[in-house]
Amino acid sequence: MSIIGTVHPIRNNGCRSQPGYLGYRGMATLENDLLKFDIPEIVYGIGALSSIGDCAQRLGGERVFLVTDPGIVEAGWVDEALRFLKQVRLEAVVYDNVVTNPRDYQVDQGVQRYLEKKCDVIVGLGGGSPMDTAKGIAILVHNQGSIHDYVGCNLITQPIPPLICVPTTAGTGSDVSQFAIIADPKKKLKLTILSRAIMPDISLIDPKLLTTKSTELIAATGMDALTHAIEAYVSSLAWPMTDPHAIHCIELVFTHLVNAVQTKSMDSLEGMAIASLEAGIAFSNAILGAVHALAHPLGGLYDLHHGLANAILLPMVVNKNMEHAPEKFAAIANAMGAETRGKDVYQASACVPEKIENLIAALGLPRRLYQVGVKPEDIPSLARQASEDLCMLTNPHCYLAEEIESMYREII
Amino acid sequence: MSIIGTVHPIRNNGCRSQPGYLGYRGMATLENDLLKFDIPEIVYGIGALSSIGDCAQRLGGERVFLVTDPGIVEAGWVDEALRFLKQVRLEAVVYDNVVTNPRDYQVDQGVQRYLEKKCDVIVGLGGGSPMDTAKGIAILVHNQGSIHDYVGCNLITQPIPPLICVPTTAGTGSDVSQFAIIADPKKKLKLTILSRAIMPDISLIDPKLLTTKSTELIAATGMDALTHAIEAYVSSLAWPMTDPHAIHCIELVFTHLVNAVQTKSMDSLEGMAIASLEAGIAFSNAILGAVHALAHPLGGLYDLHHGLANAILLPMVVNKNMEHAPEKFAAIANAMGAETRGKDVYQASACVPEKIENLIAALGLPRRLYQVGVKPEDIPSLARQASEDLCMLTNPHCYLAEEIESMYREII
Repeated sequence: MSIIGTVHPIRNNGCRSQPGYLGYRGMATLENDLLKFDIPEIVYGIGALSSIGDCAQRLGGERVFLVTDPGIVEAGWVDEALRFLKQVRLEAVVYDNVVTNPRDYQVDQGVQRYLEKKCDVIVGLGGGSPMDTAKGIAILVHNQGSIHDYVGCNLITQPIPPLICVPTTAGTGSDVSQFAIIADPKKKLKLTILSRAIMPDISLIDPKLLTTKSTELIAATGMDALTHAIEAYVSSLAWPMTDPHAIHCIELVFTHLVNAVQTKSMDSLEGMAIASLEAGIAFSNAILGAVHALAHPLGGLYDLHHGLANAILLPMVVNKNMEHAPEKFAAIANAMGAETRGKDVYQASACVPEKIENLIAALGLPRRLYQVGVKPEDIPSLARQASEDLCMLTNPHCYLAEEIESMYREII
Repeated sequence: MSIIGTVHPIRNNGCRSQPGYLGYRGMATLENDLLKFDIPEIVYGIGALSSIGDCAQRLGGERVFLVTDPGIVEAGWVDEALRFLKQVRLEAVVYDNVVTNPRDYQVDQGVQRYLEKKCDVIVGLGGGSPMDTAKGIAILVHNQGSIHDYVGCNLITQPIPPLICVPTTAGTGSDVSQFAIIADPKKKLKLTILSRAIMPDISLIDPKLLTTKSTELIAATGMDALTHAIEAYVSSLAWPMTDPHAIHCIELVFTHLVNAVQTKSMDSLEGMAIASLEAGIAFSNAILGAVHALAHPLGGLYDLHHGLANAILLPMVVNKNMEHAPEKFAAIANAMGAETRGKDVYQASACVPEKIENLIAALGLPRRLYQVGVKPEDIPSLARQASEDLCMLTNPHCYLAEEIESMYREII
């Protein structure tokens, strides 16, 4: 699919935009027509983990606070990272008390530990959970109050310490994004923090780290990357600098994901590492859409893996969104390898849901919400939360709470 | 053209690589298989110049050193920039003593002025010449010695002051690159400085600034962008993160350049602004090739406009390079809109020189070196310099001085 085109007008999808939201300090804007594109420095390679010490030193670090989780420790990557840090005589403190859908109190514990140990650079080593926890800790060591005070857009006033993210999954994109998602287990909510202040300084990507992941996780995180790319591509803030990244991710996912799950070949894992990176670049700058708006409440209420939630929601949301951005979905169909010759944009768009469903089937992921524990009686509350999610603002169409209710019910 | 693929092995083109060159501190590497991708923050929009003060303040600046040239002053953009800086109460010192192919002594004068006036942030407003001069000044206000001490790769040890680049042409890519090219008028040489230390903090792109440029300059700078994209795409350091940017530029140039020259419509100027940006991102991370190696000596000896030199050299160099990267040139042919169905990669590649020649003809640019004053007796010396140029290291094939002599003679 050729990606021609200059800057199209920024569309307003009908959502009432929050004050200050989408101002170009944080990202592209609905107000003054300025667009922005901002990503961390990316260091990539098989074995790139060995340069972790060099990266920390370049950022002026002397004592590293390494945020990770027990699975990464068990896989041996924390020991490797510590060895490489030691080689350049850097001290390190490990904080591995992080779970999937990381909790607000885990951020607080991390902050206390960071301050006690007088660290000066933070490394997030893991999937989205350790990296988002690292971001949360980074916010609070230089800003007052609790993590709840920074929920929303661009509320962080003091710069964070130097931050390096080292992803061990291919999907989250947290290593290049301005997002951090933290769970509030008391209220069973997901908190979305969005600020240019939390973009990492360096994203250090070593595809070797993907080799110790389960096939289930590779499948779910791969679907997360695909969802990021599709939502960023049809976002009302998409522009010619974000579009090629989104399209490149979609091509890579349809080339490599099934193979990565089935064989874990280094070639396919590299493909997925780049796919995740491309999607992260696209969505950090163009933001997301309704799939994420509907997925966040599911993560908050049921502690559901984010990639899995996205995978179940994606075909249904695409089906609804198609008519609001048919040219864009036709381009997505092309990137997925669909046969679109002789079809108009509506006919070509219509290939997208089937392509996604076939991919999900090949990956053996669940297709219905009941399979992951969603209860019909929770739907009104889930829908209300989804309608208020930041990500709905950039979806091609703004869905109201009652529409979202029927969307959830369609796939329960 | 679909851009599928994972990371291909970094190829060595046979050139002896310089010690320290291509180490990932500066860029991707031939030695440890690490690749990097690093770009400034990009702020884009029609009217984006109005945010210059905000950008300078975000970088902590209080007194702006504005490097520009007399043409930009005359066009009124310097007054506009000063007005916007004043709106946020920033003082500014203007240094406009810059010419095409900026001189080493102009850098020295700028440094003296910057230090006298106690400035703390630098803005390069203009084409490649003011921006590269701004980079040269930025190097010397925080590093000892003369600009000649920093010629080569990664020789800058102290960070530069905050640097904002505001391009007024669509082609140079200096606003996003790690390159600065300064002329040594005594030795009639171009000095190439390549270091991550000189990448600007912010590239502020306002397509409105292109409206006051002559059609000749739009044509020549547009060919510069195309050359950057083609050389970066076939570079031995190209990788899946740089390739889509290069291809996107090629598509945009073949869609918008002729129209930009003929009509200066805002749509076509926006197309070229993005094309230049995409090419800059590609070549800053994948580096360049033989066209630039052969163009730099022409700029040094004859003070020839860099875009014009590239335009004359490009079809001939592509003709030689094609056989060394046929798959890549086939993809370029597709991006140029050539009819490649049913052709193998060699046949498809062969469309590229003709496509370029047709474009140059449509733009009314010269096709031979004699038309721009090149003398046959200078060719041996030009060829020797070209063979030693840093850009030759990443060309798909390493040409020796005697081969380069005959290359120049072919198009004299």
